[in-house]
Amino acid sequence: MSEMQNPYLMFLGDVPDQLGAKTAQGIVDWRPEWCVGQLRLDGCVADLGIKDLSIDEAISAGAKTLIIGIVNSGGFLPAHWTAKIVEALDKGMDVASGLHIRLGDLPEIREAADRNNASLFDVRHPTHDIATGKGEPRNGKRLLAVGTDCSVGKMYTALAIEKEMRSRGWKADFRATGQTGIFIAGTGISIDAVVADFISGAVEELSPDNESDHWDIIEGQGSLFHPSYAGVSLGLIHGAQADALVLCHEPTRTHMRGIPHHPLPGLQECIDLNLKNAQLTNKNARFVGVCVNTSGLEKSEIQSYLAKLEAELNLPCTDPYSHGTKAIVDNI
Amino acid sequence: MSEMQNPYLMFLGDVPDQLGAKTAQGIVDWRPEWCVGQLRLDGCVADLGIKDLSIDEAISAGAKTLIIGIVNSGGFLPAHWTAKIVEALDKGMDVASGLHIRLGDLPEIREAADRNNASLFDVRHPTHDIATGKGEPRNGKRLLAVGTDCSVGKMYTALAIEKEMRSRGWKADFRATGQTGIFIAGTGISIDAVVADFISGAVEELSPDNESDHWDIIEGQGSLFHPSYAGVSLGLIHGAQADALVLCHEPTRTHMRGIPHHPLPGLQECIDLNLKNAQLTNKNARFVGVCVNTSGLEKSEIQSYLAKLEAELNLPCTDPYSHGTKAIVDNI
Repeated sequence: MSEMQNPYLMFLGDVPDQLGAKTAQGIVDWRPEWCVGQLRLDGCVADLGIKDLSIDEAISAGAKTLIIGIVNSGGFLPAHWTAKIVEALDKGMDVASGLHIRLGDLPEIREAADRNNASLFDVRHPTHDIATGKGEPRNGKRLLAVGTDCSVGKMYTALAIEKEMRSRGWKADFRATGQTGIFIAGTGISIDAVVADFISGAVEELSPDNESDHWDIIEGQGSLFHPSYAGVSLGLIHGAQADALVLCHEPTRTHMRGIPHHPLPGLQECIDLNLKNAQLTNKNARFVGVCVNTSGLEKSEIQSYLAKLEAELNLPCTDPYSHGTKAIVDNI
Repeated sequence: MSEMQNPYLMFLGDVPDQLGAKTAQGIVDWRPEWCVGQLRLDGCVADLGIKDLSIDEAISAGAKTLIIGIVNSGGFLPAHWTAKIVEALDKGMDVASGLHIRLGDLPEIREAADRNNASLFDVRHPTHDIATGKGEPRNGKRLLAVGTDCSVGKMYTALAIEKEMRSRGWKADFRATGQTGIFIAGTGISIDAVVADFISGAVEELSPDNESDHWDIIEGQGSLFHPSYAGVSLGLIHGAQADALVLCHEPTRTHMRGIPHHPLPGLQECIDLNLKNAQLTNKNARFVGVCVNTSGLEKSEIQSYLAKLEAELNLPCTDPYSHGTKAIVDNI
């Protein structure tokens, strides 16, 4: 997809809880400088903690794209949201959505975009044909975040590592494979929406040949141990040809997300299977660290948990969001 | 998809070589009783070795569905084939195609189907929404064919095992995951065309809960060791919850199909990785045999090759097409 123009105005509609704005919150957390404000309809319960702006005010503040960064059941666009979206298009903004429905499938929005020559971005949907993976070696370095489960912090890990590398003056780019990540990067491919034959090809396209000291930090998806989504995870691993892997984990999770009878894999077991598969397309692949989402642990037990894990796995273990990823980048 | 009605009339158009009729040949090999004849246009070089019939003759012989079982570069439908397809629809037949293009996207064909209330089957394209995989245990037994590479005989293996089981009076159904297999089964899901998130879910749908002594024999796709398609293979393994696995191999293959620099995995290595992954959704999964496509070997070396493999892997090893799968079914 072409790149979305920032700054963004965050449209929250009238979502009934904070969780509905999870995508928008991720963008504000990682790209606060791109988010000039939020636009909420009457009844909206979510709050991103940034200024409420009208479309006119947002445009005065420089906003280029209206972001529909909400999650709702069914992925549709409520009819009473259309007027604001059409207003944004008529006033010169582009519109980007993470919903399942395509913006261009809604006639009023399609027509408003056409008459204003504005762009509509549906970040869940691939916009062009993707080639099958080739497995050809390519230049540049790549790091991939993998997980013991879905939703264990792979995107936050990748963004934290990009931030740490850039703070050292390294060449590093976060490569987004999911909707929130795509809003944060401004571009990317929602890998779980690609046709199955093209998973690894999509990742090859997303992290192409580059300068030999450049790092692509690739957002992982799912888990090799998740009975619903492991195919996506394996295609990602093969397409990434990762030099470095980071394992992501959420220590309070009692079973695989959404699958009550499936326990999580052991961390060493997860490292071993990911490494074996990664070596198919990069013989030099190795794990460089473990990122733990410690938000569910008691404050008092975090340090001892991480220290125990480090001793067990012989790898730097950290919470990327609260502790940073210095130790992991040191190990690269 | 709903089930295609047999018998079939095999339409070959004017394909320029025998390889272009590979899909049609697979159908004739495995379901000769369904194939009343072939319909070829001037210039067709392929020959299925069955009677040439006009559409009227085929209908008199009972044909219900015209099968476009050809492979061409680009997957389109040559314009000069349309007239025969429309004739078949106007005379009361359904039409099924394995091309990339959808029959219903061609206005003349769409209109002919509508006015005759006939069905169009595009076997490469999923026809309905598929749920994500759940990994829930289900009744019935399942066998999955896996491979060291793509195109090593997984479909032939599955069909040969179905045939052997049925000859013993067992309840067994071949479950098709690719286009040729779907024509042979009359139904199925082309798994490589499913959106990535739904690979394992598609296989769960294809091989649902069943009587406890019933075997689903599931056609595999790709290989865990193929850098382009392994995601499809892993989703298949997880969705299948296979009790029994059969490894398929082509001993003269020097590198992974289409990927010149990638050697094939060792057979034991391939067994080990497939088994490890299969056990995620079925702890009792085990390998019951190895099927070798020996057509590239010298006649004189086949027996010693299979014997050597049996000794190495401690599993029955056979060529399913020329030697049958008796030893493997004995081992189940």
